[in-house]
Amino acid sequence: MTVTALIPFKPVNPKSRLSGVMSQAEREAFARAMLDDVVAAVLAAGCRPLILSTTPYRYPGAETRVDGSGLNESLNAILPTLPGATLIIMSDLPLVRPEIITRMLTTSATISIVPGRGGGTNAIYLKNPARFRADYYAGSFLKHLKVAEEFGVTVEVIDSFRLHTDVDEEGDLAEILIHGRGKSREYLVSLGFALDAECGRVKAERGRKST
Amino acid sequence: MTVTALIPFKPVNPKSRLSGVMSQAEREAFARAMLDDVVAAVLAAGCRPLILSTTPYRYPGAETRVDGSGLNESLNAILPTLPGATLIIMSDLPLVRPEIITRMLTTSATISIVPGRGGGTNAIYLKNPARFRADYYAGSFLKHLKVAEEFGVTVEVIDSFRLHTDVDEEGDLAEILIHGRGKSREYLVSLGFALDAECGRVKAERGRKST
Repeated sequence: MTVTALIPFKPVNPKSRLSGVMSQAEREAFARAMLDDVVAAVLAAGCRPLILSTTPYRYPGAETRVDGSGLNESLNAILPTLPGATLIIMSDLPLVRPEIITRMLTTSATISIVPGRGGGTNAIYLKNPARFRADYYAGSFLKHLKVAEEFGVTVEVIDSFRLHTDVDEEGDLAEILIHGRGKSREYLVSLGFALDAECGRVKAERGRKST
Repeated sequence: MTVTALIPFKPVNPKSRLSGVMSQAEREAFARAMLDDVVAAVLAAGCRPLILSTTPYRYPGAETRVDGSGLNESLNAILPTLPGATLIIMSDLPLVRPEIITRMLTTSATISIVPGRGGGTNAIYLKNPARFRADYYAGSFLKHLKVAEEFGVTVEVIDSFRLHTDVDEEGDLAEILIHGRGKSREYLVSLGFALDAECGRVKAERGRKST
């Protein structure tokens, strides 16, 4: 049975922490480019993408549901209605590759999870979505481990920097320039972002200012 | 033949970007705790640890060589003298696990590499260390890919957030509290660091101030 890849998405005014380097229209286009990269990866891994959008949104080739309530509320409402195994994957993971999705889907545990930087949950695969309760936001990785324990199900933590790298802040953009191969990288380059080596870690800097 | 695990280490006044939250003595003890975690992992993976220290240093159970010149200079001096396959692994990778080292060592390529956050090189495995030139500091991951190309050898990029997570800044400490299992975590806890959820990402905060 095809795995549903549930992708929460905020089309309007997303990624506010990037406001210093991108206009709202640019952030919206960038969020869409990252979504494109995630959709391409889950499709290549054989999943059915289902976009869970905070506002009405059209995405050719993928079903979209709209739920304007909070992330946890909307996920916990939709999860029990899904036909079977479900991957919840965030839309801001532009380094994702199909083979990492496959690693998640082939777990011998009941749940596989990839933590995000700072203790979030970037992707979680649920063989039985009815035996789970989404508890996102600060520290969700540790909270989800507890939820699994509560339901008495096994968890495998998947060790992937590509799925660990969620993009929220300016400092995250360099990762896309270094390791990205998709539309997100292409979009950053079109905006004039380039790598600038400094202080041991490389930063992304924008040559051409946003208008 | 046993793989040499070459671990560059700076015992005196290391990790200066942590000066805001740790005294020099604490940073030195913390750097040692991280080194302990790395040595334990490479030993468990069957490697022979060889510490390349910037100043004279005694580490029970591991050979130590001293070279006060720069990182690249000291690595490029020692690499051609080593007996065979060599892993260069940084000492500030407290999330490392033996199974990731094994993944690196079992590559079918000539070189396997794990990028650090911001484009560094956290670990690199060289089947033939004579056919390599270390080029660390800003952007070394991309530079090392070019070095491999120059030498005409194949490279596998290993996707691991545990080895991707090098510890330089305050923001990195939370990763140890969340995912660490070794001496580094133990040491941070002994200093009074604890997780504090804020702004979507979890931060490490120190309850008890350094004296």
